[in-house]
Amino acid sequence: MRILIKNGTVVSATGRGAADVLVDGETIVAVLEPGSARLGFDLEGSVDTVIDAAGKYVIPGGIDAHTHMELPFGGTAASDTFESGTRAAAWGGTTTIIDFAVQRTGERVQDGLAAWHEKAAGNCAIDYGFHQIIGGVDENALAAMDGLIDEGVTSFKLFMAYPGVFYSDDAQILRAMQKSADTGLLTMMHAENGLAIDVLAEQLVARGKTDPYFHGIARAWQMEEEATHRAIMLAHLTGAPLYVVHVSAKQAVEQLAWARDRGQNVFGETCPQYLYLSLEEQLGASSENWGRFEGAKWVCSTPLRSRAEGHQDSMWQALRTNDLQMVSTDHCPFCMKDQKELGLGDFRKIPNGIGSIEHRMDLMYQGVVTGELTLERWVELTSTTPARMFGLYGTKGVIQPGADADLVVYDPNGHTSIGIEKTHHMNMDYSAWEGFEIDGHVDTVLSRGKVVVDGNQYLGAKGDGRYLKRGLSQYLV
Amino acid sequence: MRILIKNGTVVSATGRGAADVLVDGETIVAVLEPGSARLGFDLEGSVDTVIDAAGKYVIPGGIDAHTHMELPFGGTAASDTFESGTRAAAWGGTTTIIDFAVQRTGERVQDGLAAWHEKAAGNCAIDYGFHQIIGGVDENALAAMDGLIDEGVTSFKLFMAYPGVFYSDDAQILRAMQKSADTGLLTMMHAENGLAIDVLAEQLVARGKTDPYFHGIARAWQMEEEATHRAIMLAHLTGAPLYVVHVSAKQAVEQLAWARDRGQNVFGETCPQYLYLSLEEQLGASSENWGRFEGAKWVCSTPLRSRAEGHQDSMWQALRTNDLQMVSTDHCPFCMKDQKELGLGDFRKIPNGIGSIEHRMDLMYQGVVTGELTLERWVELTSTTPARMFGLYGTKGVIQPGADADLVVYDPNGHTSIGIEKTHHMNMDYSAWEGFEIDGHVDTVLSRGKVVVDGNQYLGAKGDGRYLKRGLSQYLV
Amino acid sequence: MRILIKNGTVVSATGRGAADVLVDGETIVAVLEPGSARLGFDLEGSVDTVIDAAGKYVIPGGIDAHTHMELPFGGTAASDTFESGTRAAAWGGTTTIIDFAVQRTGERVQDGLAAWHEKAAGNCAIDYGFHQIIGGVDENALAAMDGLIDEGVTSFKLFMAYPGVFYSDDAQILRAMQKSADTGLLTMMHAENGLAIDVLAEQLVARGKTDPYFHGIARAWQMEEEATHRAIMLAHLTGAPLYVVHVSAKQAVEQLAWARDRGQNVFGETCPQYLYLSLEEQLGASSENWGRFEGAKWVCSTPLRSRAEGHQDSMWQALRTNDLQMVSTDHCPFCMKDQKELGLGDFRKIPNGIGSIEHRMDLMYQGVVTGELTLERWVELTSTTPARMFGLYGTKGVIQPGADADLVVYDPNGHTSIGIEKTHHMNMDYSAWEGFEIDGHVDTVLSRGKVVVDGNQYLGAKGDGRYLKRGLSQYLV
Amino acid sequence: MRILIKNGTVVSATGRGAADVLVDGETIVAVLEPGSARLGFDLEGSVDTVIDAAGKYVIPGGIDAHTHMELPFGGTAASDTFESGTRAAAWGGTTTIIDFAVQRTGERVQDGLAAWHEKAAGNCAIDYGFHQIIGGVDENALAAMDGLIDEGVTSFKLFMAYPGVFYSDDAQILRAMQKSADTGLLTMMHAENGLAIDVLAEQLVARGKTDPYFHGIARAWQMEEEATHRAIMLAHLTGAPLYVVHVSAKQAVEQLAWARDRGQNVFGETCPQYLYLSLEEQLGASSENWGRFEGAKWVCSTPLRSRAEGHQDSMWQALRTNDLQMVSTDHCPFCMKDQKELGLGDFRKIPNGIGSIEHRMDLMYQGVVTGELTLERWVELTSTTPARMFGLYGTKGVIQPGADADLVVYDPNGHTSIGIEKTHHMNMDYSAWEGFEIDGHVDTVLSRGKVVVDGNQYLGAKGDGRYLKRGLSQYLV
Repeated sequence: MRILIKNGTVVSATGRGAADVLVDGETIVAVLEPGSARLGFDLEGSVDTVIDAAGKYVIPGGIDAHTHMELPFGGTAASDTFESGTRAAAWGGTTTIIDFAVQRTGERVQDGLAAWHEKAAGNCAIDYGFHQIIGGVDENALAAMDGLIDEGVTSFKLFMAYPGVFYSDDAQILRAMQKSADTGLLTMMHAENGLAIDVLAEQLVARGKTDPYFHGIARAWQMEEEATHRAIMLAHLTGAPLYVVHVSAKQAVEQLAWARDRGQNVFGETCPQYLYLSLEEQLGASSENWGRFEGAKWVCSTPLRSRAEGHQDSMWQALRTNDLQMVSTDHCPFCMKDQKELGLGDFRKIPNGIGSIEHRMDLMYQGVVTGELTLERWVELTSTTPARMFGLYGTKGVIQPGADADLVVYDPNGHTSIGIEKTHHMNMDYSAWEGFEIDGHVDTVLSRGKVVVDGNQYLGAKGDGRYLKRGLSQYLV
Repeated sequence: MRILIKNGTVVSATGRGAADVLVDGETIVAVLEPGSARLGFDLEGSVDTVIDAAGKYVIPGGIDAHTHMELPFGGTAASDTFESGTRAAAWGGTTTIIDFAVQRTGERVQDGLAAWHEKAAGNCAIDYGFHQIIGGVDENALAAMDGLIDEGVTSFKLFMAYPGVFYSDDAQILRAMQKSADTGLLTMMHAENGLAIDVLAEQLVARGKTDPYFHGIARAWQMEEEATHRAIMLAHLTGAPLYVVHVSAKQAVEQLAWARDRGQNVFGETCPQYLYLSLEEQLGASSENWGRFEGAKWVCSTPLRSRAEGHQDSMWQALRTNDLQMVSTDHCPFCMKDQKELGLGDFRKIPNGIGSIEHRMDLMYQGVVTGELTLERWVELTSTTPARMFGLYGTKGVIQPGADADLVVYDPNGHTSIGIEKTHHMNMDYSAWEGFEIDGHVDTVLSRGKVVVDGNQYLGAKGDGRYLKRGLSQYLV
Repeated sequence: MRILIKNGTVVSATGRGAADVLVDGETIVAVLEPGSARLGFDLEGSVDTVIDAAGKYVIPGGIDAHTHMELPFGGTAASDTFESGTRAAAWGGTTTIIDFAVQRTGERVQDGLAAWHEKAAGNCAIDYGFHQIIGGVDENALAAMDGLIDEGVTSFKLFMAYPGVFYSDDAQILRAMQKSADTGLLTMMHAENGLAIDVLAEQLVARGKTDPYFHGIARAWQMEEEATHRAIMLAHLTGAPLYVVHVSAKQAVEQLAWARDRGQNVFGETCPQYLYLSLEEQLGASSENWGRFEGAKWVCSTPLRSRAEGHQDSMWQALRTNDLQMVSTDHCPFCMKDQKELGLGDFRKIPNGIGSIEHRMDLMYQGVVTGELTLERWVELTSTTPARMFGLYGTKGVIQPGADADLVVYDPNGHTSIGIEKTHHMNMDYSAWEGFEIDGHVDTVLSRGKVVVDGNQYLGAKGDGRYLKRGLSQYLV
Repeated sequence: MRILIKNGTVVSATGRGAADVLVDGETIVAVLEPGSARLGFDLEGSVDTVIDAAGKYVIPGGIDAHTHMELPFGGTAASDTFESGTRAAAWGGTTTIIDFAVQRTGERVQDGLAAWHEKAAGNCAIDYGFHQIIGGVDENALAAMDGLIDEGVTSFKLFMAYPGVFYSDDAQILRAMQKSADTGLLTMMHAENGLAIDVLAEQLVARGKTDPYFHGIARAWQMEEEATHRAIMLAHLTGAPLYVVHVSAKQAVEQLAWARDRGQNVFGETCPQYLYLSLEEQLGASSENWGRFEGAKWVCSTPLRSRAEGHQDSMWQALRTNDLQMVSTDHCPFCMKDQKELGLGDFRKIPNGIGSIEHRMDLMYQGVVTGELTLERWVELTSTTPARMFGLYGTKGVIQPGADADLVVYDPNGHTSIGIEKTHHMNMDYSAWEGFEIDGHVDTVLSRGKVVVDGNQYLGAKGDGRYLKRGLSQYLV
């Protein structure tokens, strides 16, 4: 199969230009002057399919480096399977995900990873890799971490939150970070002081403050800032590279900027919810069906933050100043029915998570429309940097010969209305993004050379996606 | 003329990959899978010339955005003509320069620009553009600035140093920055407090401290830091984008980082001399010919800084953290004989400047060898960012279809010994870089599709280079 | 004359305690246990006058270190003479002022000082000292500065604002600061970038923006911040101690804090107007008599700042954190009639200044009432630190044996209503503080042992006050 | 008993002046003009004792707010009893200590406090108060904290170090700080990340790094900085006032300065060992008796820090800038024989502590001699601020009528040689300060009106000292 995408504007992290892209099989084989008149060869005549991208952007497929398909959490499990979740991703222009395999206290890391391979294998619409959650740092886990690199799992996540579930104390973090410094494995961190937060949450519930809104009150920004600083200092002590997931507090960004200014290998991602949604809106939410429990739709951790305090503006700014380097979704969907409603009467029991995998590329493109980001930065934040950060660059994240033909034709003159009754391929009974309007549209998506989305048709199949063995981060200084 | 550069590793600002580059005439027409087997066409058979880059890097030609050919200064003039200087540039892998046209108090901006066009036209070995020095901000000059963009001159430089020569006071800076904010012209700034420095210099000379070393003592880092802060605040007030030239003090970098962290459009360049050379070495310099006047070889402004104070380390770090975005040369060569020696007995009369245009690509590559920079960052600092910053990206600074075929084949297994008797094509009677050894070599240089340097042969000609009308900066947030 | 102030609470900069104060002639001779029963002597029987301060505070007399009596400015002169101004000061619990003698370009420093001695001698109600304004730093002025210390003038002020009037350029500032570092004279600085401000002001007027409000728009906080930073760096370079007058921008405070954190001898004062009044109120001001020119009442430099931007809160906080060390008035009164009205139609012609000398102690005490300051900090900011800062401590600023008997009995249960028809002894046809209500009252004021204010009676006389030869600052680290 | 201290220079936190001090019984009853000629009464004739302080300083007795008499630690106990330790304190000019009562997990706070009362009652040479260590924050302990204020114990200490001994986790710290914010109890914090440090220590020992020097390597500055930041943020969240004990890392000071600049009630003390001694000296220490175990003499926590890294200079600077407010000793003496030697072969088993109570006033005075501090700042750091900080001001910390007659006559022309064979009244078999020479001397010490030290005679008695019920901190903003 041989495809020519012609007449488009190819956008990279550093610029844009008119160019045609030639795909042969699963791979990009050439990027060429439009029309290729000077090639001296009838290229267009040599291909099976021509996709006309005139007036449209051709970008490397999105990479969502933070997803949780089928994650067991709070007595239930994230509602998207690898099948449904990756299909929704493809619909939204994302052609690679990196999901989190889980190891818990007392479990073998290898078993956790094997279990996630089993969940994913043969089910994915697009390519996928894994990070490894280390929920129980002990001698066995530390020893097993050495083997992760050979498995293509070159990053692991620790939690400073969720005592009794995934939580690592500072002694455990120190040991794991020493391993990170020794091996090159990237340390990812959920940076919230869970011990303190759980006290605040308990006190709120004891005082009858049980609405979803109080989830955000308990998870005070001070405790995100604190944990971020702590992680930075443990990384400084050990020499580990550090990547802080789902940053939402402006003061946490200030800590990242402080560490980065002195040259430390510290990175941060944020998510669309921390750019667009706020605690005030969660407080105000109410519906006929759910009453004030409506706010449960946006219960995630880190939580939505106060707009009056300026967190959202700070996130956009940090994306521009490169104090945050990536936008992932932390896709972790739960339905209201039977799932979120577990927390009726006690916000602590609401499964934490929002589903956004289908909308990340669109939501971030809207930031281009509103002037928050440049077009190039959009590509960098959603594809190129994730690829560099997580050892995929060259195969993914860039349009160049030899790269996988993961390509999106994005139409800046198209339009996308988000809503449960409109575009919604995630397995959720609500949309966290209901009513958002996007001034652009994902027209065509190629995953390793196969057209999986074309206009409003899904052409892919379960099992199209393959496991990606990742190399070490290419982003470290 | 049709050239295929094959088997090389193409390096961009974000990554590297094996690829062939097809040039037709002056332009890159395709970037292809090595060997192009899957193109379905005997590409190699279709070209005039094949350059084998196996084991070598193929990079976009260097852009030196800060040069001063034939600059009148201190009663003499920079010793490189546009002819000799640009030829030396080509030898060193630089295929574009942006030089500074000069307007002085009472002169017409248009006349200054025209004069520089006259100096350069028909003489250059490589393509060239102009910034405009506004040495006398008045109503006429301000009015004339509106026309610069049409001339392809999209940036202008002001001086906070050199009272009576190029100096602008804060009222003038404010007015010029308002123009910058209104038009999109980028404000470039020589940020040193010249009024204070001139008092210190006068006092030193009065006390018999006349050696070249005292040039650096008079130009204290506090006065660079101060001027940098002042420029930042005037830019904040007016909304002008600001680019600080030849940053050398770590405290100045701290000011830039502070402004950038809050999202201000503030940028900075440094030069090889601030990365490698130091005040201590200048103090220690002595020779049979020149005695302690030997130090005059490295008299430039901003001056060399103390290594004990950590300025050099800070510059390297800032290049990694992106608090500095570019490396230019501030190429402004003077011979010792008849030129530098004007300052015998009074360091104030030493023409300020160092010649480095030939060595920038090599010197910065050595930073890759020593682990200060990644290979990608080397390309970004010396070519891609200069192109984006100064409105040349797409034509220059990137290897993609449609771009000018300004290409360098760089051999990481080659070696370059710098010295007046070895590689030295600049019109100077000494080398500021005598004895530096580089673990790499510029093998082949193409300028708009013409091979101008091949191995140790110069194949170009006077007048190869054309004037570049630049667009507005593409780097602003 | 022998006076015993009994039963009061003596308040110092560090604490408070019940104590009696014995005054003999002009001096405090003892501080004693209340009632003095254990002294073994009928002390009360031995005195001429007993003042019962039960339920009241006994504090050292206020020191207002920034006043401008009879200052020629903008074609008129400050409306308070030394006679009227110091009498108003006494009414308000201030027993010492430090006024500014003026030298201008081309004038002899000695002549300027002599002229101010002439204005003040024999006219003052309270003791007074002088700072020296150096409006024209040249060789003569620099030479004359050596002699100031012998004259008891141990501080001098420079202006970064008011080009053509008092303005010093950076070369002049550098030279004067070198003198400061050599001699111990304290450098005081009006830190606003006057060159830039005058351009902004001219542009505003040219666009018809002539109301008093635009005075504050022209004098943008960025230009106070910038000048503050510049003064700090020039002080760092020279080693001069620096005292920034009338700080009003929170960003200027941040600069002071930054310098102080690294141990530099940098200090700052603010004034009541920057704590209580705002640009928004000036914008809103309007009256039957004056229309929108009403705002001229509060035209001073630095200007009132925006409350929405948080400057006032920042000033209060800085007084608590000791990033600002003193509160002076910058008393520089002008009447609306014939004086302020010079600027009808052009805010640049409004004489700059506000009269507050009578109300400083009360206004700052109100900060104690509202919880902004502790009682001790009130004394420290208004009396003890000014004495230490300006070489008067021991004689002034403290209640201890040997100190001048400058004492105020302040009633926390009293009340003071400020207004032109009420308490108003300043020579102004309006009060800048009309309508302010103070929950305290200056009951009794002693100046060098003489009761000059008692209840609502003025008992002092013209010429009570003597010139104070000041020593070097005792506050430097 | 009636004493007149005449002709001395009375020094306070804000200044100095010639004055006589009259003591009657336990109290200061008057501070008077020297000679009291104008008192109208033969005061000198009325007293029992006259102490001539001509040429000497009269200062308020020292307050050492951080001591550990008889503290059980590491299987042994601090070698000074309340009797021996307080007597040594008196010898050194310290007339008040605040020691730490201890509560451990599972114990009743009341019992801990009672036990310490029992140890101290009737044994002390000088007055003493208590802080309460809460080593086990649980419901009972939290409830008991309410009662502490009535007991005159208005501050409590938590430990972020020493897991399994005194350690509190962040949940416990949060709860205790909430209590602090509610009641006004001051939270004191040992800020080191003990979990991480214990891992590092274990790893060092496992690698055979057992010398005392490695104690300081394990307790890396990053872990002091981190814990300091964490404590600050928990205090910010809860509103608790925070006092960080024994600060030794410059980066920890930077955190304190950062919090203080924004107006948070955060304070810090350092100790003489962090000003004078260094890790390098500990590394170099060796003796005939102890070999490389000699370094155990200076094993304390926080540890001595590297001089090359600038920590000591930073501590002195912070004392000047008021980023640190007090100097205490953390007096916790252990003998080498039988105590320190428990850690032969494993630095973790060396009892942590240095004995300095006898030398604090002298060591800090030496800072005046060398120009690090002013005379006034010496008094402020060692007496006035401790009194204000810990609710003793008025009774202690100041020379004013009504205050306890705790007075020291200090001779700036005297000399003190510190050494085990010279001045050494602490119960230790070595001096941590052997060989230090002080250009001053504690001549006379009064404790509540009783002369306890006179020249080289000890005139006090066991049981002279009384328990001090302290009020709430008077130092908070």
